Formats: sequence, C-alpha cells, structure tokens
Amino acid sequence: MKKKYIVALDLGGTNTKVALVKGEKIIKSVNIPTRDYRRKEVLLNAIIASINKLLRDTRLQKQQILGIGIGTAGLVDSRKGIIYNLVNISGWRNVRIKKIFQQRLNISTFVDNDVNVMALAELKFGAGRGLKNILCITVGTGVGGGVIIDGKLYRGSSLCAGEVGHTPISIKGLRCNCGGIGCVETFTGNSYVVNRVKNTLKSKKKKSLILKLANGKLSNITPELLTKAATLGDKLAIDTWKETGQFLGIGLVGVVNLLNPEAIVIGGGMAGAGKFLFNPVRKTIHKRAMDLPAKSVKILKAKLGNKAGLIGAAELVRMEDAR
Amino acid sequence: MKKKYIVALDLGGTNTKVALVKGEKIIKSVNIPTRDYRRKEVLLNAIIASINKLLRDTRLQKQQILGIGIGTAGLVDSRKGIIYNLVNISGWRNVRIKKIFQQRLNISTFVDNDVNVMALAELKFGAGRGLKNILCITVGTGVGGGVIIDGKLYRGSSLCAGEVGHTPISIKGLRCNCGGIGCVETFTGNSYVVNRVKNTLKSKKKKSLILKLANGKLSNITPELLTKAATLGDKLAIDTWKETGQFLGIGLVGVVNLLNPEAIVIGGGMAGAGKFLFNPVRKTIHKRAMDLPAKSVKILKAKLGNKAGLIGAAELVRMEDAR
Repeated sequence: MKKKYIVALDLGGTNTKVALVKGEKIIKSVNIPTRDYRRKEVLLNAIIASINKLLRDTRLQKQQILGIGIGTAGLVDSRKGIIYNLVNISGWRNVRIKKIFQQRLNISTFVDNDVNVMALAELKFGAGRGLKNILCITVGTGVGGGVIIDGKLYRGSSLCAGEVGHTPISIKGLRCNCGGIGCVETFTGNSYVVNRVKNTLKSKKKKSLILKLANGKLSNITPELLTKAATLGDKLAIDTWKETGQFLGIGLVGVVNLLNPEAIVIGGGMAGAGKFLFNPVRKTIHKRAMDLPAKSVKILKAKLGNKAGLIGAAELVRMEDAR
Repeated sequence: MKKKYIVALDLGGTNTKVALVKGEKIIKSVNIPTRDYRRKEVLLNAIIASINKLLRDTRLQKQQILGIGIGTAGLVDSRKGIIYNLVNISGWRNVRIKKIFQQRLNISTFVDNDVNVMALAELKFGAGRGLKNILCITVGTGVGGGVIIDGKLYRGSSLCAGEVGHTPISIKGLRCNCGGIGCVETFTGNSYVVNRVKNTLKSKKKKSLILKLANGKLSNITPELLTKAATLGDKLAIDTWKETGQFLGIGLVGVVNLLNPEAIVIGGGMAGAGKFLFNPVRKTIHKRAMDLPAKSVKILKAKLGNKAGLIGAAELVRMEDAR
C-alpha cells in the first residue's frame, strides 16, 4: 500500500495547526490555540489528541500515514528531532518531539524550522517550482531564510544555515536581537520599519495619511497600514517601503553574488506590500549586484502564503522518506 | 590502464604554468611568461608545444593522461569550456579553449576560474581536507571566493557563484570595479588598504616605520611591506591590518550566518599577513555572527599557496571525470 497521506503540523507560539495533507492539498485541518495550553505536557497531549481525532474523522489507519512533519518557529535540531524552545510555552526546553511522537503515535516524525519548511513548500508547489538553486526568505517580525541547493534543502554544518536576516549591511548600526550589529533585520524587520515611520512623524510633523489611518495613534501603525497608505498614494508610506526594499535589496546583493541563485522567493507579512517593496528590491539588486548573477536571478513573491507551513511540513516528510 | 597523470595549467596574465600532476604532486612544471606572447594564437601554440614537450620529457603517452585542467583568472564558462577574456592578451575574446585543446591534443579538457580551482585544491589536499561545506577566499588585488557544498564545487545557476568579495558591508561607500557600492573588496583589496595607509601618512604626519621601510616613497608601500612593519611593532601597520580584518570579518559574518560552513579558508597575497589579519577576522566573526554558526566555523589559512592553481586544476579534471 502506498502511503499517500501525511500529518502536518505548523507549531507556533500563538496557533498550532494540525492537518492531514496529500500532495499539496490540505484535506482537513484543525487549529489549536497554543497559548491556551501554557504547559508543555498539556500542549503535547492536545496535539496528539488532535492527530488521533483527525485520523478517526478521515477514517485513515496509521499504516496509511507516511509520517508526521513539523514546522516550528522555535530553534530546532532537525537531525535529532529536538525543538529547543517555543515562545509562550513555559517549560518547553529541549523537547525531543521526534522521539515523543514516534513512541506515542508509532509514526515516523520529522521536524525543522518554519522557514526551511516554507522553502520546501515553495520549491515543490510554489514560486520555486522547477528551480534548483533558490533562497526563500520571510520578512516579518524577523527576517529568516531557507537555502535550496541543487534541488535540496541545505542545512549547513550545524543545521542552522539560512539566516539571511543577519547579514550585516552596515559597519556600524543598531544592535540586533541575534547579537550582531547592522543586520538586514535591523533595517527591515516589522518593528524597525514601523519605528522609522513613527520617528519621522514625530520629529518632522510631516503631513501623511498614515496618522489618519491609525486614528491618530502612533501605536496603531503596522506594516499593513503602511501598505494601505501607500496604495492611497501617501508619500511617506511609499518612501518607507522604498527605503525598506533598498535595505533588503542590499542584503540580497551579497547573496546573489555569492550563490548566483535562480530565484529569491520572498514571503512573510511584509511581502503583502507587493510592488511597493518588490520594485525597490529588484532595482537595488540590478543596480548593485554583478551583471551576470543579477541578470539570472528572479525576485518572486511566495505563492503559498500561510499554507506554506503545513504543505512544507508534509514535504519535509517526503524529503526525509526519500533519503 | 588507470590514468593517473593530469596536465595542469595555471593561466594568468603574467605567467602561465604548465605542469604534469599526479595526486597532489607536481612532477614537472614549466613556466611561460604570458606577456611575451601577446597574441592569442601564439600563446596557444606555445602552451600546446609546452604540453607536448612535457609529455616527451616524462616519456608519457597521451593515453596515460586523464585530462587537461585549466585554472585562469579570466571570466570563464566552465560548462562550455570558454575563457571570455585574459588580461594582457589582445584578441583573447571568447576562446573555446576546451574545444581547441581537445581537437589539437586529443585529451579531455576542463576549465574553471582560479578561485574555484583553488577551492578544489584546498578541499582535497589543503586546509579543507575532510570537510564538506566550506568557502575558500583569496584576498589580494581582488577578493574572490569558491563555494564547496556537500563536498562538491558549487557553481550557481549561471556558473558565477562565489563572488564573496562583492558582498556590500556598507549602505553607502566607494564604487567597486564590479559596479556595486561598498563591497568588501573596496575595504580589503590591496589597493584600497594601501591607499588608506597612504592617506593616513599624508594627512596626519604620523610617525611610522612604514615610510622608512618604503625608503620615503609612498608608492613603495605594499601589503608585504605593511606586514613587515607590523612584525616590527609598527602601530599604524598593526592597526591597518586590524581594521582590514574587521572589514573582511563583517563581510564573512553574512556568509557564516547564511551558509553555516565548517570552515572559511583564506588565501591570496594578503593571507601572508598571518595573525595580523586572521585574529581580527576571527574576533569579528565571533562577536557579530550568530552563536551556533560562529562556534562551528573555523577560519583557516590556505595551505597550498601558489601551488593551489596547478593542484586544483588537476583536481578539476578528476571531479569532472567522476561525473
């Protein structure tokens, strides 16, 4: 019997999605509000119960399941199957999730971080379909990346490759959460972009739609709001996206020259800014990267949106199974 | 009969070395002063004559030669076997060297750029021996790189990967030869480093051994002279290397975070500065890169020196033959 079904988990600090996946199709999924289960044991029990219920509801036997794939925002050892930490869940320290799931469910389990999993999804079913050497990045609260080399996920020598958000683009600069200085993330992460806008609004008393859309409250400003303002033609919003795209582009110039990829796929909340972000990214790469690699790289928007986590987690199982 | 011998060429704008190589051993080599043969045809004839003489002198038959491997400083299409340009040789445009050599010598021929070839040599016989994911860089007039992924040379989607010298480490900065702005090369390439020293000596009238060692002439200052001055305890020379190592380190931070390599192997003329350059590089990476990849990466000095070109060209043949 060919095992066509995969149980996919998108394990986040706010929500955990559990789904049954076949190919790129999410057949059935349930959502667990992670925060309601603040203790590790309780959360694990809830996930396992959801998986069992999913199998019952779809009348599938465990023997029909190829494996369980998990993508998570936490720090992961994909080889040992350990999730080192998980936001909001106290006592979540070095959880051997692979071992636990395999023992309690008797199904092969694989885990990786959410950006690697997203890269697998975009490679197989999304913007990177048919390509061999690509970088997938997410730009949101943080800036993460997944590297695909020769059609395969590249994890690096200690399994932590892909951290393109921590490329320094400035000799001096802000201290980054990672401990570095002047990382791309300190120029393009959500809070940094929003803070630049707030500071401009405060200091220069510029006329802008932004404050109106935010009902006069600086704290209401979000990247989504900036995109809305840009769509309505607001200059400050457009300039903010332009500047952000330039910063991101400068960080990617180094990657383009080093890895000469076929494509860079950009997802995450900020990709929602569309052309306001993508045009300056493309322009910066064409202006500052070397001719040959700049010509051959496509800057693409991720296609799978927030489904990438589940579809990629399923793809992770297929990848590991094929080894 | 197992073919153990390889003809290796290190084709540069000043000198062309032709050698017979077995494993990592250069059995016999000859030097052709490239500049004496300013025309393409004449140079090609001289090289072919040298190869034939080498075979006669060593009493080897063509059937005993696995192939001809060529490393060159010019721009190369390694798949088609074309060298697009070669400094000092007029009329050298898009030379199909693979085809020419195979037709005229009836021996399989392969070509790649000098840094990729050096990376292969260091991987197999030098500082990178036994490792799988490394970056080899040369720091000299320019800053180049070769990427080894999973034990294999990674060439990228249009065969121009590895250009780590053109990672921007500054949002604004000097215009680079590559067309970019603020590239690592504009902070660490020979002329840039020497120019910084000259400017300091001119503007600040600093006391320094450098000018004395240069017999009072700014134009005599070279990286080698700076290393000599540093060895003698000269503060300006030591500070110059420190600053250069910091700049190089900042560029490498991005690579360390993105590729999580086991090692970065540094060669080229400037590697001769030894600890004066390597210590600040290491310190900068440990300070600014993320903990996990910073801990696992070794910063190593290239071992094969100027033999890397020939040994790597031979290794290129073995690599291609094994496909």
